[in-house]
This record gives sequence, C-alpha cells and structure tokens, in this order.
Amino acid sequence: MQIKEDNMKYLFKPRSVAVIGASREPGKVGHAILKNIVEGGYKGKVYPINPNADKILGLSVYKTVSDVPEDIDLAIVVVPAQAVLDVMEECGKKGVKYAVVISAGFKEVGGEGIEREKKLIEIAKKYGIRVVGPNCLGIMDLHTPLNATFALMPRTRGGIAFVSQSGALLSAILDWAPKVGIGFSKIVSLGNKADLNEVDFLAHLGEDPETKVILLYLESIVDGRRFVEIGSTVTRKKPVILLKGGVTEAGAKAALSHTGAMAGGVTALKAALRKAGIIQVTTLSELFDMAIAFNSQPIPMGNRIGVVTNAGGGGVIASDLLVSKGLRLAELSKHTIDYLRSALPPVASIYNPVDVIGDAKADRYRTAIEALLRDQNVDGLLVILTPQAVTEPEETAKVIIQLSREYSSKPLLAIFIGGEKVEKATKMLIENNIPVYEMPERAVVAMLGLASYREFREYVTKVAEHMEIFDVDKERVLEIIEEARKQGRKVLLEHEAKEVVKSYGISVAPTKLAINEDEAIEIARRFGYPVVLKIASPDITHKSDVGGVIMNLKSDEEVAEAFRTIISNVRRYAPTASVYGIVVQKMVPKGREVIVGATKDTTFGHIIMFGLGGIYTELFKDVSFRLTPLTLYEAREMVAETKAYMLLRGFRGEPPADINSIINVLLRVSKLVTDIPQIAEMDINPLFVYEEGVGAAAVDVKIVVE
Amino acid sequence: MQIKEDNMKYLFKPRSVAVIGASREPGKVGHAILKNIVEGGYKGKVYPINPNADKILGLSVYKTVSDVPEDIDLAIVVVPAQAVLDVMEECGKKGVKYAVVISAGFKEVGGEGIEREKKLIEIAKKYGIRVVGPNCLGIMDLHTPLNATFALMPRTRGGIAFVSQSGALLSAILDWAPKVGIGFSKIVSLGNKADLNEVDFLAHLGEDPETKVILLYLESIVDGRRFVEIGSTVTRKKPVILLKGGVTEAGAKAALSHTGAMAGGVTALKAALRKAGIIQVTTLSELFDMAIAFNSQPIPMGNRIGVVTNAGGGGVIASDLLVSKGLRLAELSKHTIDYLRSALPPVASIYNPVDVIGDAKADRYRTAIEALLRDQNVDGLLVILTPQAVTEPEETAKVIIQLSREYSSKPLLAIFIGGEKVEKATKMLIENNIPVYEMPERAVVAMLGLASYREFREYVTKVAEHMEIFDVDKERVLEIIEEARKQGRKVLLEHEAKEVVKSYGISVAPTKLAINEDEAIEIARRFGYPVVLKIASPDITHKSDVGGVIMNLKSDEEVAEAFRTIISNVRRYAPTASVYGIVVQKMVPKGREVIVGATKDTTFGHIIMFGLGGIYTELFKDVSFRLTPLTLYEAREMVAETKAYMLLRGFRGEPPADINSIINVLLRVSKLVTDIPQIAEMDINPLFVYEEGVGAAAVDVKIVVE
Repeated sequence: MQIKEDNMKYLFKPRSVAVIGASREPGKVGHAILKNIVEGGYKGKVYPINPNADKILGLSVYKTVSDVPEDIDLAIVVVPAQAVLDVMEECGKKGVKYAVVISAGFKEVGGEGIEREKKLIEIAKKYGIRVVGPNCLGIMDLHTPLNATFALMPRTRGGIAFVSQSGALLSAILDWAPKVGIGFSKIVSLGNKADLNEVDFLAHLGEDPETKVILLYLESIVDGRRFVEIGSTVTRKKPVILLKGGVTEAGAKAALSHTGAMAGGVTALKAALRKAGIIQVTTLSELFDMAIAFNSQPIPMGNRIGVVTNAGGGGVIASDLLVSKGLRLAELSKHTIDYLRSALPPVASIYNPVDVIGDAKADRYRTAIEALLRDQNVDGLLVILTPQAVTEPEETAKVIIQLSREYSSKPLLAIFIGGEKVEKATKMLIENNIPVYEMPERAVVAMLGLASYREFREYVTKVAEHMEIFDVDKERVLEIIEEARKQGRKVLLEHEAKEVVKSYGISVAPTKLAINEDEAIEIARRFGYPVVLKIASPDITHKSDVGGVIMNLKSDEEVAEAFRTIISNVRRYAPTASVYGIVVQKMVPKGREVIVGATKDTTFGHIIMFGLGGIYTELFKDVSFRLTPLTLYEAREMVAETKAYMLLRGFRGEPPADINSIINVLLRVSKLVTDIPQIAEMDINPLFVYEEGVGAAAVDVKIVVE
Repeated sequence: MQIKEDNMKYLFKPRSVAVIGASREPGKVGHAILKNIVEGGYKGKVYPINPNADKILGLSVYKTVSDVPEDIDLAIVVVPAQAVLDVMEECGKKGVKYAVVISAGFKEVGGEGIEREKKLIEIAKKYGIRVVGPNCLGIMDLHTPLNATFALMPRTRGGIAFVSQSGALLSAILDWAPKVGIGFSKIVSLGNKADLNEVDFLAHLGEDPETKVILLYLESIVDGRRFVEIGSTVTRKKPVILLKGGVTEAGAKAALSHTGAMAGGVTALKAALRKAGIIQVTTLSELFDMAIAFNSQPIPMGNRIGVVTNAGGGGVIASDLLVSKGLRLAELSKHTIDYLRSALPPVASIYNPVDVIGDAKADRYRTAIEALLRDQNVDGLLVILTPQAVTEPEETAKVIIQLSREYSSKPLLAIFIGGEKVEKATKMLIENNIPVYEMPERAVVAMLGLASYREFREYVTKVAEHMEIFDVDKERVLEIIEEARKQGRKVLLEHEAKEVVKSYGISVAPTKLAINEDEAIEIARRFGYPVVLKIASPDITHKSDVGGVIMNLKSDEEVAEAFRTIISNVRRYAPTASVYGIVVQKMVPKGREVIVGATKDTTFGHIIMFGLGGIYTELFKDVSFRLTPLTLYEAREMVAETKAYMLLRGFRGEPPADINSIINVLLRVSKLVTDIPQIAEMDINPLFVYEEGVGAAAVDVKIVVE
C-alpha cells in the first residue's frame, strides 16, 4: 500500500521548501505563496527561486534549484506552464522529494496541455518526485505550520483535514471557516491529480495523528477499487465524509440487461461507499456541520438522543428531524424523570425533549443537561437555547462547556438560535470546542453523522469477514466467451449463458442447442417432457415477440412441429437474424421469481443486484445492490433489505422459500464476474426459488461481454 | 368567511392601544411592551393602565380602561392570570375591539387554567371582543408600525408575515432576523388560540397588501377543513409556507382496514396541503430561505434554472442539487452559447452551469448574467461567487443588483460563499433586496420554493374545477348503518357493506345473506353458478383463517355441503363468534386487482386511497391519497401517480384496463364518505378492473362506522 511506500512526511512537514517562480510583485501568485509560507510561521528553510531577483521578503533568491547549497524536500512550482517541465528536470536532478505544481495549462486546457501533463508525469517518475497538482491551489498543514497556497491560512487549527478537487471552492471555504470556527489540520487542493490523488491522501490522512476526520470534495475518483480498499481501512480508525460533485449526470447508458438498466449512475457509488464505510453528504453545510462535531465530540454508543430546550417549538422541530433521519428520541429512565419532576418547575416538560421553559436560567439548564448526560438511556445530547427575557446565554454556555468536559464520553451539540443576544455565547462555545449551530436541523445532521459513523465502523468490520471460495470451472467459461468473441458476438446465446453460470455451480433448467428437429427430439427425450423450444439467435433479444418461443411441449411430434413453426416464424418476423438453431429447455416447476444480476461500473467495477423477478422487477425497482466481491454478510443483507424478502420468508401462509440458495447464487455470481471481468452485464431472470431446502434454478440467463 | 366579518384593521392598525398591566419596572413584561409600543414609533394613542401608577415613560396612566376618556381599539393584557377575566369584563364594557392576552396561566397549565380559558372566551363572545392568545408573545405590524410584544422589533420591514404557535421560537427568530436581513410585515404569536387561530390570520394576511408571503409555524391545526378551504383561496394570491411541528408522532391507531393502516399521521396533512396549495418545509432554514426569495423576487415561468459561477465545484454542487430536487438545468439557446463562446475566455464553460472561471471580474459576470437572463430557455438564475485572487465581490454585487432590476421578470438568487471577503458585498445585496445565501443548497431550496409555488398556484385552480353530483341512495345507507348500530356493531357485514357501495352506484359482485341451506341454494340459482360462500359474522375479520370461505361452488349440492362445512368449521375454530348466516356471492370474472379505500383523519376529515390490490397492497404500499371531496382531476391524478398505473395502462402486451371505471369508483367513494361522515374506515379490496369499457366490480368491501 501507498502508505508504506510514501508517508508524505516531506510533503507536509518538509525540512526545506523552494518556491520556484517566487515573485517580488505583491499581486502575483509567486509572491503570495512565498509570503504565506514565511508569514504562516513555517520554521524550516525557505528558498525563493527566480533568475531575476536577489532578495524577496528579505530572503536570498537563487537563480535555479541547482544553485541552492542544501537539500530541498519540497518544491512549490509557480512558473508559467511552458517552463514547468524544465523546472521539474532541475528538481529531479537536485533530488527534490515532492513538488506541488500550482501552475495551470495542463490537461484542463486540452490539446498541448494534455501532452505537457504526460511529460510532467514521465519526468516525475524518472526522478521519483511525487507531485501534487498541477493546476491546484496548493497544500496547507496548520500544525507544521506550512501554508503552501496562495490563500490565507485560517488561524484556528484542529483535526479536520479537507481534500478538495475544486481549488475555487477551497479558497471560499478557507475564507468562510473562521466565521464558524472550523479547525483544520491539513488542506489539500488536488488539481488535475496527475500523480498523487484522493486515495494517496486518504491513506496518509488515515495515519495522520493530527487528523480526526477527513473531508473529501471529489468530482471524479481515479481508482475506484483502491478507493474502497483504502477507504475501508481508514474508516475503521476515523470518519471519512464525501461530498461527490456530479452525481446526477444522466448516466443513461444503453443497457441490454435489467440489471444494467436499473443500476443508475449513483448506484455503484452508493454500493462502494457502503463497502468503504464512507459517509456521503450532498451539501457543503452537511460536510462542515458534521466535521465540526467529529472534531471535538466522541462517537456515541447508540442513536438514542436527548434534547434539552427552553423553547417548546425548538424541541418539537429537533425531535421531528431526529426521528425522520432515523435517530431515536431517548426514553429517559424512571430515575431521571423522577429527578426532573422534583427539580424542574411543574409546567416544564420532564420527558424527552425536556423543556426547561422560557424563564430558565443557566442553573436550570445545568440540572436538565446533567441529568440527561448521566442517564444510560441517552447516547448523545442536543441543547437548544433561544434568547428570552431572563435567559442567560453566556452563563448557559459556561454550564455546557463544563458539563461537556465532565461527561466527555457522550457527544453534546449546542443550538443557539438568535442574533446579537447569543453572539457572545456562541463565540465562547466555539472557542471551547463545543459545536454550536444556529438552527436545529444543522445539529441534527451533525448528530446523524456521529451516529452513522458508529454504525459504519461496525459495518466495515462485519462486512470484511471471510469470503468463501467455490469449486468453479473458469476455463470452460473462458472458452465459451472466446468462442462468442471469435464469432463477433457480445451477447451470449442462451445455452451458452446457462453453461457459464452452471460452470460456477448455479443450478439451471437443463438447456441445449439443437440444430435440427431430430436433435431437438433427442434432447427432449433425454431431458424428459414437457420442454420449451426457443430460438437461438444473437440478433433476437425479445424472443417471444417474433414467435420464437413455444412452451409446454409434451411429445416428439409436438417438438418437431414447434421446431418448424419457430423457424418459419423467425423467417417471417426477423428475416435478417442469424439463426444458430433452437434451444431445448426442460420445463422446471414454477418457483417464486427473483432476479440476480451484475453490471460493471466504469469507476468501481462490478456491482451485484438482487430483487423481485417477473413483471414487477422494473416496475417496482425493488432491488438491492452491493459492490463485488460479495461477502456472505452482504449477500444476506441484499436479500433482507428488499420487500421481496417478505414474500420469500412466507407471506400470507405460504411456506418460506429457500433463501440460502439465493445467497449461494449471489455469491457465485460475484465470484463469476470477479474471475471473468470481461462480463459487462448479466441477468439471471427469473431465478425460480423453491421451498426451503429444495433450492433454486436459473430459468433464463443473459450475459453480455465486453 | 371570517375575512368579511372581521378585517382585523383595529388589531394591526388600531387608532388607540391600552396596555393593561403596564409597569414602571424595566424588568417587567408590562414595561417592555409599553416601551416597545412607544419606541417602536406607534402613532396612535397609548393608554397605560395600572391602578398604582401615575406616569410611565412620560404617559398618563389610568387606573382602569373605564377611566380612559376615549375609545380603545386594542387592549394588550399583561396582568396576572387571576385578574384577566375581570379586565376582560371591563374591556367589554368599554367597547374594546381586540385584546391580545399575553398573560399565561390558562389551558397550558391544565386544571383551573382550562376553566379560566373557557370563561375568557365566554366574556369575549358576550362583548364581541376578538382575542389573540392567551399565553402569547403578542403581535407586530412593522408597517403601522406597532410592536405589541415584549421582543425587539427588527428594523428592516418587508413583505414577510410570520404566524407562530411557539412564542419562544418567535423571539429567537426576531433576534436572528437582522443577521440575514429578513423583512417582516406582520408577526403573530398565536399562543393558546382560544379565539383567533391560524385560519383567521391566514384569511386576513391573504388580503393584506403589505404581505407578500405568509409563513406558519404550527403544532396543531384547529379546523382542518377550514384551513384547507381558506388556504386554497389565499394561495391563489400569494405563497403560504408551513413548518408543521410534531409530524412524526407515532400516530399508530388501531386500524381495521388496509386504508387505515397505510394512512400514517402525515398522510392526511400532505393531502390537505396539496389541496390547499401550501408549501411544506421541515426546517427553519428552509422556511426563511424561501421567504427571503418570495419577498423580493418574481415567480418564475418554469423550472429551467441557469447557473453562473466562478468556481467549477460550486456550479457542480448547485447543479446536482437542482436536479435532485426536481428542478431542471436550463438548456441555453444556441444564440446564448454562441455569444458566450465569443465573449468569455476559451477555458470558460459556456454551457449551463456557465463557469466564468477563477479570474472573472465583475464585467465578465455581467456578460454571463445578462446573456442568461435574456435567454428564453432560462426561467430563473443562480449566481455563485467565491472570493479568489482578482474577484471583485462588491463590483459584482452591483452588477447583480442592476441586472436584477433590469430583468425583473426572472428571479435571481445570489450565492456568495466566504467570510470577510464577501461580507461587504453580501450586505449590499441584502440592502438592495437581492436574496443572498452563503451556501448553494440554501439558494436551491429557495428556488425550489419559487418554482413550486408556480406549480401549486396552477394546481389549486385546476383541482378546484367542477365536482359532479351522482344519483345515490343516501337513505338506504343510513338505514343499513342504523341497523348495525342498533345491533351494537361497528363493522358492517359483507352484504351490508356491499349494499352501501351499491347504493352509491358502484358495481358489486352480487352478494346476499342466506340463513339456511335452502335460502343459499335459492340465491345461488338466482345469481347463476359458480358462487362463493362466506361466513357472515361481525366477530370474524379474517374469514379464511377459520375455514369460513369456500369458492367455486357449481351446483345446489355443492352449495348445501359448503354451507354445512362452513358452519361446522366456524363452530370449531370460532366457537364464540356470533353468526348472522352465510353470504352467497356470485363469482365474477377475475380482473386486475386494485384497492379503493377511505379513512377519517381527526384534523382534516376523510382521505381517499387508491392503490395496487391483492397481496402486494401493503407490501409495496403503492398507494396515493387525496382529501375529500375529490375532484375529477384529483381522481385521475391518484390513479396516474401509482406504479399500478403502468400495469393498468397495459403492461407487456396486456390490453389496457378500464381506468375510467376506477375514477368513477373513487369519486363515488368520496361522495359516500362526504354524505355519510360516520364512516370511519372503508376498503374496497379487491376491486376487479376489467378491460376498457367493461367496467369494474367490488369483490370485497369492508366498512367500519364510528
């Protein structure tokens, strides 16, 4: 793993930094960066590089990096694009370890920029320089401290690392951060990600003791599989929150399978994040509201939340939101309720949400907050304050600060609604590391983040457990696919597709290709009547529509006649279709119909789908998805989270279906697409599922290869 | 309607105000209110009432209202609860028109408080005084100006009216409002709503020329039907936005029907708001973010939104959110694209979202904004600014202000992300009535509000169209229900329930009660074979479970035997059940199964349900709801918005079902429960729907009366 090869020490905590393209002119980026490094309090050596200057900001300037007498760990490159490659060569010769290339004019401009970026990577590889950017804002480490960007570094430092693929957004967030008291540890502007990308930083930040929570704003993910792999390692240690830009692009690919059609653009991302234990948010507010909570608060032991308020309405709104987001309103213990009854005024509400009512001063808040923090039925607490006649915002803030320290194992989030009257108290809370929000909804989202992380962390551990290996005939599958490839077919014929899944241990309704009537009769006799005949043609997707299917054939004569009828139907309705023969399929007993499928996402690879089969499949879209490779735990979950599960468990007096056989098929399909990555899409639809212990049989199988 | 009887002129714009309980002590509410009235700039006459003072704040004090020499339009009552009734009597004798009772100690404290509130209403009625409160914060009219509350009045006035059932929340919002530049018209704290309630204020504010948008925070709705009726009148003129507290309470009532079971606590509210055209939000941010937009911006002609940004990431996030919320990214006209290609730098993105890129100054913003506002494909515009090296926040704000005025028919919302660097520009925008948000998500919600209102306004007009009257036999239904009532039954027997719906013109499978074998045979012969026999007992809900149903009987002998078998089964499996006989039902041809039902909500009255029938009904909950009385337009919508609609229109080659007959049944059920309000729950499940033109038949009907 990247993390062992390269611990990024000399990127974030370099002993020396060269600013190549340092400028004397205050308006220039090359000046701003040098100034930021110096004024940001960096304690290592700084070498401005500029062929036309002697001194900048009092520092001696060198004409090139080669002229610098000592070693350079990190080079910040701000020269025009045309000069970058030469500069990189010099850096390589000098033994520079990291380069942050701020300069634009690479892949993002197209044309020669793409070529230039390729060369940049070549040079970096040749010399072993690791590169951030190009076309980026730079990096910051607030603990070093090092501000190698042209934006101002926020004064407050903390445990929040932010990795952003948008430099502009980053600069706006850096300007906004002090307003809400966000404490950053490290800031990374990814730029074009020519070399170091989100996965490298994710791995590093996962190990970084100064970082408590990792925020990602990404518009693309370079290596989806590695992202999931590293992600699931990191999230066992600390939370990772992703805001993914570009999620709603109409990813309407022309799918040939039900699975492909139902797996929209976001399906694979969701499946991947689930596997990685990464929290996904859709807004910047959510990203930072959660981050602030993670930065200072512990992870709750559960999702039972207490609410203390001096405004009934605030408590009601917070409770509604808590419940609607899947958190629970804590049921206070009898002890707590009895205590509150004796300690609070009679008109106060002593059940959760606890309303200390409008005339509550700080001491009454103390009574309620402490009682709830002590209650074992409370996993986390929201404290709402609205400024009323006798309210003591600052005194109450002090109480919150003190009790939060005293009961440090439970997260406490404050909600101070108001303007001038709560301004000072809000500042006090921020300075004392108590997350404070101006509206209930924002604190609820933050609490949801904390509680979700606890679940996710448990989940990645569960999910990671053992993956069984099966006896499979991979060679046979490769032969079948190779044969289709030779014939220029991307869609396997039905009997081929069935043989593929059979080779992976999945029961199929016996099916064989016949090229004439006699063969068809012979196969039918061998299978035993009744049988079905279906046209075998790569050009016919909907066989029934051209009269290409005849069911329930019970004798040799019926088979012979059906054979002729199908051929004649197809000649009439699909005269140009290339016909390979007719498949004979044994009719199997009807079971409950489900679908099992797989499709390949360009970023994350294969995802597996399970759902209700038959005509309801696409109508109700009652399906679940997981990223391969599927574990037993995930396969079970996939079945259990669909509504079809209710039917399968035995609905309205029906006996339960063989759910284990479905799980078996899911795991085998996962194994199949993992072994044979050239499978682009596949459906087993319907898979007939029989009663418990009887098993399941694939009745129709469709496989599309790349 | 309320609005004609009482236009509230003397509440919000009184010629004279008495403060009963005015106090000299600055800490007291009775002082704060008087001070607020005087310092708030009220221009009418102010009479402090206090038996123990001569002058307060320089005003002459009267011992009682009777002592005041002139007429009093409005009395603000702040005396202790015990004194309120006497004070009200005096007000009545004096001819006071309105009383705002601030004092607490009424219904909210229980016990004698409830009694006191009853008496308060009696006195008010006796004298014709209209009352706000008791137990409230008071009222404000920023245009009068009149601040009859003990909170400070925000300096900025505008077109936003806020009616709140939580006084504490209101006081926090009033403190918070100046921070974000919210311009209120009127503020109402509802308190206990002993007399004037949300509907009265909704009606008044709907006619108030100073109010552009009405915000409601409600925890209860007093008269649901009138709320919907007045609401739908008001929303044709101006937007109404509701934040409803207490929506997630587990309203798990013990339902006897599918419809009752599937209509959760929020179902009726949603149906009601839809009918009234009221926008529902779930957070305070949404409430005010939308309000700010409505206060100054026009309603867009459609939902095609343009985005101009200097940060790619901001544009991406805004676009994702727009699309995920059901708005559309405008497709710019060829003319606009060509123009932008020539006018913007080559690396800018000239398609929507238009990225003017990081080095954009105000003039480049002007180019892009003006081009988009001119484009007929753009209905509304978001302008995103992030502070970067050469960005000109204030100059850009000026451009926005100017262009927004010039192109005043399209809403323009600004998003300035940042802190210090955008502070001044943000203030400029606020002062010039341009809605500005610090994060994209908030502007998107606001734009969604604007676009939704356009749709809702159109919708209330459409929905209100004609409601047909049917030939129905109401008397017969009342007889059947009276008969059941006499026998102490709440659940009608199957043949009774079928007769009820038949009396309202709905086709039913012929069904009749037989009390012995001979009668059963006679009925079966009359209906024609085959028939079904089912036990008739008010104590047996699931007839099949006790062997109480035998299907497909084809002869006299089979009917006789089935009769005996059922009787014997029921004796064995439900020995205590009271048996009324056995119903004989003609077996009707199988059709597509749907459910039509109704249930009664305590606040809003009856709602009608439509959905997929059979075993999938509760599994997929593929159902739609509307409030009665149902219009033709709504009935059509109900069918069309379910997934069942796909099946009914003809799925996979099936012929289309008789959708008109479903609509007919829906309208007749609506008429039935409107005429017979004692019906608490009912299901027609399944209703068999046949091919187009063939009709539909109710196969099983359940009716529960109160």
